[in-house]
Amino acid sequence: MGVEYDGTDFLGWQAQRHGVRSVQETLEASIARVADHPVRVQCAGRTDAGVHALEQVVHFDTSACRTARSWVLGTNVTLPPDVSVRWACETAPAFHARFSALSRHYRYRILVRATRSALDRHRALWTHRPLDAARMAEAGRALVGLHDFSSFRAVACQAKSPRRHLYYLAVEELGDVIEIRVGANGFLHHMVRNIVGVLMAIGRGEAPVEWTRELLAARDRRRAGVTAPPQGLYFARVDYPVEYPLPRDGAMELPGTTAPDGSESRVVS
Amino acid sequence: MGVEYDGTDFLGWQAQRHGVRSVQETLEASIARVADHPVRVQCAGRTDAGVHALEQVVHFDTSACRTARSWVLGTNVTLPPDVSVRWACETAPAFHARFSALSRHYRYRILVRATRSALDRHRALWTHRPLDAARMAEAGRALVGLHDFSSFRAVACQAKSPRRHLYYLAVEELGDVIEIRVGANGFLHHMVRNIVGVLMAIGRGEAPVEWTRELLAARDRRRAGVTAPPQGLYFARVDYPVEYPLPRDGAMELPGTTAPDGSESRVVS
Repeated sequence: MGVEYDGTDFLGWQAQRHGVRSVQETLEASIARVADHPVRVQCAGRTDAGVHALEQVVHFDTSACRTARSWVLGTNVTLPPDVSVRWACETAPAFHARFSALSRHYRYRILVRATRSALDRHRALWTHRPLDAARMAEAGRALVGLHDFSSFRAVACQAKSPRRHLYYLAVEELGDVIEIRVGANGFLHHMVRNIVGVLMAIGRGEAPVEWTRELLAARDRRRAGVTAPPQGLYFARVDYPVEYPLPRDGAMELPGTTAPDGSESRVVS
Repeated sequence: MGVEYDGTDFLGWQAQRHGVRSVQETLEASIARVADHPVRVQCAGRTDAGVHALEQVVHFDTSACRTARSWVLGTNVTLPPDVSVRWACETAPAFHARFSALSRHYRYRILVRATRSALDRHRALWTHRPLDAARMAEAGRALVGLHDFSSFRAVACQAKSPRRHLYYLAVEELGDVIEIRVGANGFLHHMVRNIVGVLMAIGRGEAPVEWTRELLAARDRRRAGVTAPPQGLYFARVDYPVEYPLPRDGAMELPGTTAPDGSESRVVS
């Protein structure tokens, strides 16, 4: 299933202790009502509290026979308004939403203006301090490639290896919004938000453009900057091998972005 | 003052009976704390429950001497997160936010896709039925000019005259969003939402392109279509005569729109 959610009122993707609202449990409850049996869903990339998803991908095992349309419409009927299923399809037994994924794509929205925004308060990070997008883009280029991202990794990160392949990092200015788009084979815990924190310091002129390169070499989280807050972060897309063709429900645009997201950054092996 | 608000949790602009949340009362309470005396604000265009504002303009009389910066920051401190002041300035005594306005500008966002959206649930009207934007644009052109808009007027509308001068009506497709932008010397009650309802019927092919022209001629509300719901509507901008120069806080973009809003559609006498 492709799933969209507004992360504002969730304590993140993962099911936690009882009484805490998670996207996972919310989704499992609604799917179970369509399947007529309990389900456990696995997602491509777990998101933290307040982080949104344009198209999270999940899989689950079921003995129920339903059409794709029934899965989508049936699940959406009982889901709360801040989660929606965009598509569903049957796939091969070997498919795993997390382990089959070739690449994940995130976006981060920063609103740069003198006063806070009422409409974008849960949809972007607001800053009143000017940011030099060109400097941020230049600094971001040093991160592209296969690197040890220890300096951009949360202390609590449980990944075995700190090495990740960053396929692209683009910084785009759209009116008073700066949007950072990144794609990688995978991301460490808080990696996107830590990258954004560092790029913002560089964009404000508080750190040199070379800082990203230095941080990669240092491989030490204590050297890097603050973690950017969750409300600007969107889990945007996942790519899988061609043997697992997944439906696309057409152009899916992030609120605040311009043209349809071209396939130039799509990575399919 | 220029004021932005998320209309979702307000019962509209206007102060109503006690215990009902209105933008007007919320704003008056916060301004009063900066002014140290009660204030009454007048706005350029009252909005209904659920309708948003990117830049509503308000004025009030005060005996307090504060810098523009103090009015903005001081008011924002006590305003709830779904309202924000964008700018403030002192103006001539003759200025009136409503009566001095030369033109008002609205936008309406329609999300066209198979399934409902979690992130845009309060920011756009969702429809799963395809819309022909070119047909809608063509039908909209008939409305531009000085017309009797009785067919597009709410039954409860209290305006003395049903005549309004529509300066432009543009229909733009941005990915899976269709945005309708209109500007006029003024709008009747529900006029934008009634226009959108009619254009959507035409866009779905349920009514001929000529329907807008026929409705103008009929001058009968009962002949037109349904009123589009409020969550897609944004009060975008107001223009005043050059003798009342108002600050602009830079490019202010509607979530989901493309390029900065050029001045081509700006009407300043």
